[in-house]
Parts: sequence; structure tokens; C-alpha cells
Amino acid sequence: MKIRVGVNGFGTIGKRVADAVARQPDLELVGVAKTRPTFEARRAVDRGYPLYLAGDTPPEKFTAVGLPVAGRLSDLLAKVDVVVDATPEDIGRENRPLYEAAGVRAVYQGGEEADVAEGSFSALANYEASRGKRSLRVVSCNTTGIARAASVVIPRWGVRHWEVTLVRRAADPGDSKRGPIDGIVPTLQIPSHHGPDAQTVLPDLSITTAAVVVPTTLMHVHVNHVTLERAPSGSAEMLAAFRATPRFHLFAGWEGVDGTPQVMEFARDRAGPAGAPGPDLMENVLWEKGLRVEGREAYFFQAIHQESIVVPENIDAIRALVNVTDGPTSIARTDQALGLAPGGPPAPVRAPAASPRP
Amino acid sequence: MKIRVGVNGFGTIGKRVADAVARQPDLELVGVAKTRPTFEARRAVDRGYPLYLAGDTPPEKFTAVGLPVAGRLSDLLAKVDVVVDATPEDIGRENRPLYEAAGVRAVYQGGEEADVAEGSFSALANYEASRGKRSLRVVSCNTTGIARAASVVIPRWGVRHWEVTLVRRAADPGDSKRGPIDGIVPTLQIPSHHGPDAQTVLPDLSITTAAVVVPTTLMHVHVNHVTLERAPSGSAEMLAAFRATPRFHLFAGWEGVDGTPQVMEFARDRAGPAGAPGPDLMENVLWEKGLRVEGREAYFFQAIHQESIVVPENIDAIRALVNVTDGPTSIARTDQALGLAPGGPPAPVRAPAASPRP
Amino acid sequence: MKIRVGVNGFGTIGKRVADAVARQPDLELVGVAKTRPTFEARRAVDRGYPLYLAGDTPPEKFTAVGLPVAGRLSDLLAKVDVVVDATPEDIGRENRPLYEAAGVRAVYQGGEEADVAEGSFSALANYEASRGKRSLRVVSCNTTGIARAASVVIPRWGVRHWEVTLVRRAADPGDSKRGPIDGIVPTLQIPSHHGPDAQTVLPDLSITTAAVVVPTTLMHVHVNHVTLERAPSGSAEMLAAFRATPRFHLFAGWEGVDGTPQVMEFARDRAGPAGAPGPDLMENVLWEKGLRVEGREAYFFQAIHQESIVVPENIDAIRALVNVTDGPTSIARTDQALGLAPGGPPAPVRAPAASPRP
Amino acid sequence: MKIRVGVNGFGTIGKRVADAVARQPDLELVGVAKTRPTFEARRAVDRGYPLYLAGDTPPEKFTAVGLPVAGRLSDLLAKVDVVVDATPEDIGRENRPLYEAAGVRAVYQGGEEADVAEGSFSALANYEASRGKRSLRVVSCNTTGIARAASVVIPRWGVRHWEVTLVRRAADPGDSKRGPIDGIVPTLQIPSHHGPDAQTVLPDLSITTAAVVVPTTLMHVHVNHVTLERAPSGSAEMLAAFRATPRFHLFAGWEGVDGTPQVMEFARDRAGPAGAPGPDLMENVLWEKGLRVEGREAYFFQAIHQESIVVPENIDAIRALVNVTDGPTSIARTDQALGLAPGGPPAPVRAPAASPRP
Repeated sequence: MKIRVGVNGFGTIGKRVADAVARQPDLELVGVAKTRPTFEARRAVDRGYPLYLAGDTPPEKFTAVGLPVAGRLSDLLAKVDVVVDATPEDIGRENRPLYEAAGVRAVYQGGEEADVAEGSFSALANYEASRGKRSLRVVSCNTTGIARAASVVIPRWGVRHWEVTLVRRAADPGDSKRGPIDGIVPTLQIPSHHGPDAQTVLPDLSITTAAVVVPTTLMHVHVNHVTLERAPSGSAEMLAAFRATPRFHLFAGWEGVDGTPQVMEFARDRAGPAGAPGPDLMENVLWEKGLRVEGREAYFFQAIHQESIVVPENIDAIRALVNVTDGPTSIARTDQALGLAPGGPPAPVRAPAASPRP
Repeated sequence: MKIRVGVNGFGTIGKRVADAVARQPDLELVGVAKTRPTFEARRAVDRGYPLYLAGDTPPEKFTAVGLPVAGRLSDLLAKVDVVVDATPEDIGRENRPLYEAAGVRAVYQGGEEADVAEGSFSALANYEASRGKRSLRVVSCNTTGIARAASVVIPRWGVRHWEVTLVRRAADPGDSKRGPIDGIVPTLQIPSHHGPDAQTVLPDLSITTAAVVVPTTLMHVHVNHVTLERAPSGSAEMLAAFRATPRFHLFAGWEGVDGTPQVMEFARDRAGPAGAPGPDLMENVLWEKGLRVEGREAYFFQAIHQESIVVPENIDAIRALVNVTDGPTSIARTDQALGLAPGGPPAPVRAPAASPRP
Repeated sequence: MKIRVGVNGFGTIGKRVADAVARQPDLELVGVAKTRPTFEARRAVDRGYPLYLAGDTPPEKFTAVGLPVAGRLSDLLAKVDVVVDATPEDIGRENRPLYEAAGVRAVYQGGEEADVAEGSFSALANYEASRGKRSLRVVSCNTTGIARAASVVIPRWGVRHWEVTLVRRAADPGDSKRGPIDGIVPTLQIPSHHGPDAQTVLPDLSITTAAVVVPTTLMHVHVNHVTLERAPSGSAEMLAAFRATPRFHLFAGWEGVDGTPQVMEFARDRAGPAGAPGPDLMENVLWEKGLRVEGREAYFFQAIHQESIVVPENIDAIRALVNVTDGPTSIARTDQALGLAPGGPPAPVRAPAASPRP
Repeated sequence: MKIRVGVNGFGTIGKRVADAVARQPDLELVGVAKTRPTFEARRAVDRGYPLYLAGDTPPEKFTAVGLPVAGRLSDLLAKVDVVVDATPEDIGRENRPLYEAAGVRAVYQGGEEADVAEGSFSALANYEASRGKRSLRVVSCNTTGIARAASVVIPRWGVRHWEVTLVRRAADPGDSKRGPIDGIVPTLQIPSHHGPDAQTVLPDLSITTAAVVVPTTLMHVHVNHVTLERAPSGSAEMLAAFRATPRFHLFAGWEGVDGTPQVMEFARDRAGPAGAPGPDLMENVLWEKGLRVEGREAYFFQAIHQESIVVPENIDAIRALVNVTDGPTSIARTDQALGLAPGGPPAPVRAPAASPRP
């Protein structure tokens, strides 16, 4: 029997999580909830996702533009085992009493304060400790990127201290309101909130983060400096570890991928064929030539696609809540359904076919 | 028997045309040719497109990074009926002797001068006149946008004069070299080359174009002012005509699509389900609230996705060259295979399903 | 005896108007009013402008950071003949009763609705008709640019119809909040408000405007198409007229000024020497090679520096209100004090000196 | 008797250095050399700087557009004691034989390799060691920013290790060619060249730098993490040291300066009054709230105006070459002439005047 899932909020994160739920063999997408009729509501209907109303907008606003309404958020909550809250920052907390009253388990996003849920979650970092809780908060995109990388490094070489400068995208691609258009805005508080947030899933990690916001919409870039407990034999050892871990994508150098414009072009290039991961990039992206090890000091860049990186972790959080399987199994199942390469070398090149169909 | 097609050049346009060829029931993608091993070459191999070498790069450069090589460009040309040249500006002309020597029909892109081919081409404008030629040049993205719109207007109300201000994107999303980052650069020559270029496919069109380049990567926007021969009854009549024509997408106003950031978000939202058009937007995009008719004066905005708008026209050009069918049939076949809505009201909303798969 | 002037609002426009008032031989800057202590308040104090408080901020907030306060806005109003309101959009209207109660004449900005004042104003367009009024509204930056250009064209060749596409900067350079970062946003209403606004100062002008917003901070660019009543002999005649008019700057082509980045670089280059106009560009900027005349059809680009173009008009509006002199005299006086070239050929090149001081 | 100075190259750096030379009481600007007639050449003439020709452009190209030519570069070199080479990257090295043949001392810019000159130079770091050399290379904008900051920290608390993430502007404001428009491009080599470059002026500094390029034109931002030898008593002690050092500007927090857009607005605001520093920002900019000290670990942001920060160092390099005075005297003289505040608290606020003139 499948786990029944509802998604409340159908914006940048919610629509991606809904798609990902719908692709999982052991999850059932019961419906999605949205407050306003927009092109994104239309997308839900076009994909056959039952559309429920959150908020006070009268259903006629939806039906008048050809968007059938399946009910109210409360109706959706009555039919699901787990709700994924993908509403804007701080609205998740407001919704919590609804979820509790409905007796459903809940996944919140990283825009909420940590105490919104019983625990914070990142699949590679603390899946086991999260099993069976009533609610989980998937840490934010930047923190997910950090937590994944730290989960590779900690068990292998130990971390004395981790320093990250986060070069943050200022707005999402579909946002025409936010700036800056030309300028850099430092987040003056040091550490930025990302360091303490990473400690919600990796409590023993010594980490300091500093952030600046820059005028791009595509991806964040992290500049990492890690002081290790034990020196790896060299950069090859470290690269091999990242390469062997799910949810990492490494560029070797020959591909012509200089920066985030080409990274996202690569992602768009993967979209299309059935079963492919779509125009998103749910993996941490590393450049092999941008990783340097010198004794116990390691440096590397990683790029983080803020729109999609937390999607796999939301799926795993659902399974952790219902406690149906262990972390490695959930991660492998999630990734296979999403078309992500398993850890290990890049997927083998398929043999050329005479007249292929994408 | 399918028309055998090769694509020379596998960048922004070439890779999209190759995908589109591979989706057509009556075309066979024999292979693609590329000069350098990059992530885009890898994409060709991953999709099963036989990869041929154009230029002098030794094949070892490809095989060393795991990219099997099927032969040289000349080998590809020996196997095809039609080659689509999607190489950078002015390289198409250099390639012409190769195509002629191989006895293959050729489709060139709009970056070439008009005399590279026997005729310039835009499917809605001059398909019939183009049938059976040995070579065609698909006009550029901006000109294709203009030609499509003019092909709707001319037969219905006549055009006394067409004025377009083209607000052009400065670089493609995957380009990290070109600017400006902050600034507007007018193309001082008036008319810009787009007006005369439109006349290569619509010779009787009186048109003046002026252009500026602005710091965006997503889409061009055209500001149109058309003086008609005969007044429509109002904007509704004009909107209905655009809506009834293939390769136009109209936003009604309720969708929350203010500008090109949301338009491309809409396009990305369509990607994913099998048969969907992918994260591109091959249609001319109009805003219903941005069209105004006052007597014989009509004004409207349209947005043009520079990366993909010429893709359907490239497919139609192949059929026109081989002269296998008429324009409307080709257009309908192309669009169905690409998942584009036929002319007419937006595709009907599908009934909600219990647990859909995207 | 000098006209006593106060400036209420000390942001982008207010600080520039204050500087310009302080440079005029016949005006006295009595003080400026500001709501909050910021680096711009500090600038007022550094330049010796008495600083008055507008709004409810307690004076201690200013004095605590070393900014002496000369009084409240009402104190300032008691000492002046004319107040220039440079507060944000719609605040001018709220302030009107204060100005009326204080019995001072008032200049408002173009962000206010036209009926905020007895008349709208643009110096080249309607100075004479504005003399002696109790209040004037200087039309906005874009409208000022249009009104100046139309004031050159109308008396010489007549205007049958004027079409402008406005390519608008999305935010000012000092603004880190507003986007879009990547995208174009059309103003769907046609005509945009600029056309009707131009008619508040040139009521007989037949004009249609359409606008798009683009991600730049430097300048607006207008793409103009004018259908004239009488054909000029050619573009040289038209260029000569613009060149002979105050507040126009023409680039001949040899300067290497391709777009607004170089235009503003040119402006910064002028700054420095005493008496120079500073890093602003208060003139309409035309490219000689971007003007084309074909019979009675004329096309030209102009760039408009949104931060400063209305500054000279604000000064002239003060003199028009008090009715101390005629338009040409006011314009010449304003421009000389601001270091702007008089109409006519560019200022003659000064002879090289042995060891100059800027 | 004044030191006679010529400036070869009149672009972003050259024009600023020429202005700065012209303002120094003990330097004489003999002339500037330029290869092409542009608006910047016009600026030289307008300011009365004798204009010499570098390169092969025939003088008629200049005189035809009203730009009088005083001679060739060789003529200029014959009249000066020191030449400042401000030509594009790598051209300085090509010019070196000319300077040596003319027997003039030379200042090169940081775009050249270090061995172009007898020594690299940064005024706060190694003025004394540079005195009397035949040639000096002023390190680049980013390195100058680092060297200044390190010169404050090293003598007070010692530096065990310095880490900098450089968030670099991609193009200058007057450049309309370079991108990226939307994206982040990491400099994959770690350390970036800035660390070793800083060691050319501070050879004992242990430093690692990493860099990313972002789509802005205004300023670079450095994110610094310094491990000190000795702990300061707190952030106040460290801030006081920066505040007491010439060529640092600190924002306290009340000014409303969130990021580089407001920093450069502040700079523009300073321009105008005679003797003011102009629209540039030659100081390292720090935010008091963006500096954190925790034991021996210190973190701070600084913003660097790439167009102007090296200007004072170029002036000091001239005096060091001719060996006319010591470092502190040169720095004080340079800064006073440029209108920069001496180290210490911000310049006292002047008393309001009745009718000030800017």
C-alpha cells in the first residue's frame, strides 16, 4: 500500500516535490493545495494533480478560468498520511495546527525556524535519527548543499573546522521583482544563519559561514575551506569519495563548463527523454579542477541549484516519517525514480542507435 | 520511407533541431556533427545520436573522454537526404561546397546571408513557394517571430505598414562571456537588419524595425505597431486570429505572467511529461491585455524565445525541400510531434486522476 | 534679492535639486527636509545645507549620529518662497495642504498625478504658460525627455504623430531591492502613461507610447518614430536643430559611445573640475548615426538619465512660479550655473595648458 | 621643483591617475598618451592635458575631430622624470624598452607580471623598501585591497593565516561587451593569483585566496577570515585600527548602506564640491557590523572600487621612485590633495551655512 501524500503550496518547491512524489513507486500524490489561480495552478491541473484550495480565495476564481477544484485544504488533509508544506517562509508554522488537528505527519521547508518540527532533516546526514518522527523540517537549499558535502567528508577524514563563503543568487528565475540588478550585498551577520542551520542536522560540525548576495538567478556557489582531522592522500581520493556518493555531480574539466550558466545548460540538456531528471539539477555540482588538497586543508567550489536541490530530501523525509525503510534504500529509490545517477562513475554511455527517440 | 537527416553543429540550435528531428515520425536522425568534445557532445551520445566529427579535432580527443565517434562529417553527408547546418554565423556559407559536393539538400540558419540558399523560409509565410528547392535558409529568431505574426495579419486585414521595436536579449543563458551586464545598447542603424530580412520571406511587407540590446538572457520582446488596411472589429477579433494559428501562445491575464521571467517559468513547467514540449517555448508569446486596436492601428507585444523558436521551422524546411507534403500538413505534423498545441483554444484541461505520473 | 527655496525630500531627485539650487546666482537654498538619518542626510550636512526634519522621526535619531537639526519642515516652510517637493510618489499630494497653509509656492515631481498642481511643466514646452502659477508639477524623467525633443520638432516641421517605445531602467543605481535581474517586463497598457503625460505640457501633440522594463540601472532609452507635417531636407537639418537646442547632447560617432554604459562613463568623465556638471547627465542624449530621416518619417534614439534629467526643469519651474524672468533667460541661467553647454556646437576645446588643475 | 610625470594610457586607470597627478602640489602632469580618438581623449583635451599619440594611429584621426596632438609618446617621454604606464594588460611589458631607452622611471599596473619592474608596490605595505628603484609595479585592485588591510593587521596582532574569498565584479561600468549577464563563474585555480600577488608586497604573509566572478560592475567584495597570532580585546579594537588608518572608510550601520549599490551612491554623493574626491571610492570600505572577532579568529567584509583604489598608490609610487620623501608623508600629501579623509574619525561635520555653494 502506497503512502498517501498531499503537497500544500505549489510554487518553486511545491511543484517540484509534487512531480517527484508522483514519480515514486511507493508514494501516491493525492493532491496539491494552492491559494491562487495562476499558470502554476494550471500546470497542476494539466498534469492531473487534484487541486485543492488553501486560503480564502473563492473556488469560482479557479473554475472561472477552467481550473476544476477538488476541495479545500482540509479535505486534502483528510485523505493523506503525510503533508509536505511548501508554502512561503513562516506560513508553514501557521499551518502546523491544521496538520496536527488532521493527525497527519508533516514535512516543512527550511524557511521555517527549526522548532517548527520535531527535527531537522537532511538525508545523507541524519536519516536514521529522523525515522518515525511526527514532523521533519528539510533544511534549506544552501544548508542541504553543505550537509551533503559534510556527510561525505566527516566519516572519511574528520572535520576540524569548515568554512564556507556562500555566494547567493538574489532571486529565482521566475521572479521579476527582486534585485539587486547591479551590486553585491553582504549579509553582515557572521556567521550567517547557514552555519547554525547545518548544525541542526550535523550537531558536532564546527562550521562558520559568511554570505553575500549577487545579481544572478541560476544557482548559489559555495567556496569551501575545510580543515580535516586526517589528510587524504590527495585530491584524487577526495574526488573519488564525492563521485561515489549519490546526489553529487562532478565535472571533469573537458566539458566546457566554466560556471553556473553552463551548469544549468547541462541540466536543461538532460531534460526531455522519459525518465530523465528534467531541467533541474538536484545534485551538488563540483568541478574536479576546483578541488585542492594540501595536507589537511581542502578547498573546493560547489554550485547549488536552489530551486530543486531539496526535492530528493523531501521525498526521503516522507519515508523517514512513516519509517518504511532505511536511508540508503530510500535514497536509492528516490534517485532512481527521479533519473539521478547512482553514486559512482557517471552513467555509462549508451550505444548509438540508428534512429533514436529522445 | 523516412527522410534521412543529418545535423551539422550541435549548439543552441543544432541540439534542439536534432531532438525535434528525432521526434518526427517521417524523419530519421542519421547523426550529428560537432567540432569539439563538450558536455553537449556528451548529450548527443547519451541520447543515442551517432556523433560525427566536423573540423580538424582528432577523434582521440573524443574517445579519450568516452565519446564514441561514428565518422567524419563527410561520412554523415554520404548517408543523408538533407543536412541542417546549425553552425555559427558565416560557417554555413563555408560549408556549402561540402553539401553541394555531397549532393544533399541543405537547411541553413538565419545567421547566414540570404544568398547562402536558394530561398529564405518561414513556414507560415512562404512554405508553398519553397517546395522542391535545393536549399533553404530559415530566417533568424526575431525574423521568424515577425514573419509568423505578419502571416496572421496580412491575409485578414492587410498591412499598410509594420513598425517593430526589438528589445533583444544580449546573450543566451549558457553564455558567460557576453555583456552588457548593466546598460542598453541601441543598434544605431535604422532600419535594423530584421526588417529587410522579413522581406526575404514576405517581399510585399512594408516594415521598419529598430533594435536595442538589453542585459537579459531569456527572450526577446517585440513592441509592434501595425497600420492595417482594414480595421478589425476590435481587439477580440485580432486575438482570436492569433489564438487560432499554430505556434502562438496567448496569456489571458489571470495567469500571473508579467514578463519574460514568468513566461520561461511557464515553459519549464510544461517540461517533464512524455511528449511535452520541454523547457523551451517555440511559440510566439502574446499577452491579451497587451494588444490594443484603435481603428486601423494595432499595437501588441510579443516575446520570442531565441533558443527554440526556429526549431519547428527547421523541420518544416526539411519537408519543403524534399517536397513531401504541403505547408499545413507539415506544420500540423511537426507540432504534434513536438507537443505543441494546435491552433485554437488552449488544450482542454484533462480530468484529474487519482495518482498521476508526470 | 534671491528667491528663498526649500527642498523637501533628499533622495535621488531632492539632493540633486538642492545642489542645483545652491549653484544658482538668484536662488538661495534655505534648507532641506528629510525623514531619516542616512548617508544622504550626512551629505546634506557635509555640504552645509541646513537639515530640517520631515515626518515623525525624533530629532535625537539625527543628533545621535552627529547630524545637527535646524528645525521641523514647518520651520523650513516659514522661511521660503518656494518649496520643491521631492518626496516619493504620492507623498507630494499628502504634503500639499502643508504648503498651502504655509503660503508657499510649490514644485512637485512627475510621480504625482497631474492635478496635484495648477499645471504641469517642462521648460522648453510651456514655460510661458506656466508663469505666475501657485504650483507646478515637473513631468517625470521620461516625459521630460519626450517633451524636450518634441519642443524641438514641433515648431520646425510639425508633428502628425509621434510614436515612442520606452525601454526603461528597472531601478536606480543605489537601489538593491528592485528587479528583474534577468528578464523583460512589458507595461501591458497601451498607451503607457507617458503619452498622456506628455500631453499635459504639449496638449496638441498626437503621441502613442509603449514601454518595457529591462534590467539596467543606468538610463532609459527611447526609440522614436515621428511622422512630420513637413519633410526636413535630411537628417543633417534635424541634427542641427537638436544641436542648437539647450539640454541636448549629441554623439557624432567617433567617440566610441556604443550604449548607455559609455554615455554614463562620459558623464562621470565630465565630473571633477569646478563648475563642471558632475557625474550626472542632464541632457537628452542622441546618437547622430542613430537618427534617420526618410521623407516625413524620422527615427531616432535618445537616452535619458532618470536620476538627473529633471533637475534643470525644477530650477526653471521655481523661476516660472515667482515669475521673475522669461523661459530662455531662465534656461540659459540655469544651464550656465550647472555647467551645461549652451545650445550650439559642443563647447570649444580649450587650449592645452602646461600643468592644469582639474 | 616638481616631478614631471607622463601617463601612458588614458582608460579607466590612466585618466584617474592623470587627474590625481594634476592635483598634487609636487607633481606636474606633462601630458598623457593615447592610441585612439575617443570621448576619453576629448576629456584629456577638455581638462587641458597635452595629448600625445601612442601607437600608429595617424595624428589626423585626432585633429579631424578637434583633438590637438602635442606629439608622439617618445616626445612625452623626453620631457618627464616618471611615466605611469596604464595601458592594457601585457602592453606595459612591451612598452618597457621604450621607457628604459628614454631613461625615465616607470610605474606599471598590476595587470603586468611581477617581473616587469624592479619591485611590486603597495604604499602601506612596502613604501620604504621601494624607495629609489627604477621601476615599480602597483599591485592590482584586489591585491591593493588585501595589502592595505593586511598592513593594518600584521603589526598589531600578527597573522597566522589569511583566507579571502574574492567576489569579483565581471566588468567595469563603461564596458558593454563582457558578461556574464546571469551566472557565477568560479576561478577554479586555488589559490587564485591574488594570494601570491599579495606576497610580492608582503612576502611573509601566509594567505590563501579563492575567487568567483559575478554579474556586477560596481565593486569587488572580499570575505576575509584571518587567524591572528594574538587576540584583540574585541571587534572594537580592530575597528579602531582600521578607522585610524588612511584609505579606509567604515560604515557604522545607521547610514542605510546595505551593499555596493549604496556604497557607490555614497561615493557619487561626495562628488561635486571643489576638492572633493569625486564619484570614485579610493578607500577600502568596511562595514562595522560586518566585522567579527572571536578569540584569534577575525572575520570581515570589505568592498573594493576596482576603478579607483589603486590611484593613490600610483601617486605614492611616483614619489617612492624619485625618493623625495617617506611613506607617511607621501600618503598624507596624496590623500589631502585627493580630498580623502586622513586616518582617524570621519571628517567633522561642518556647521550649516546660510546659503552654501557646493
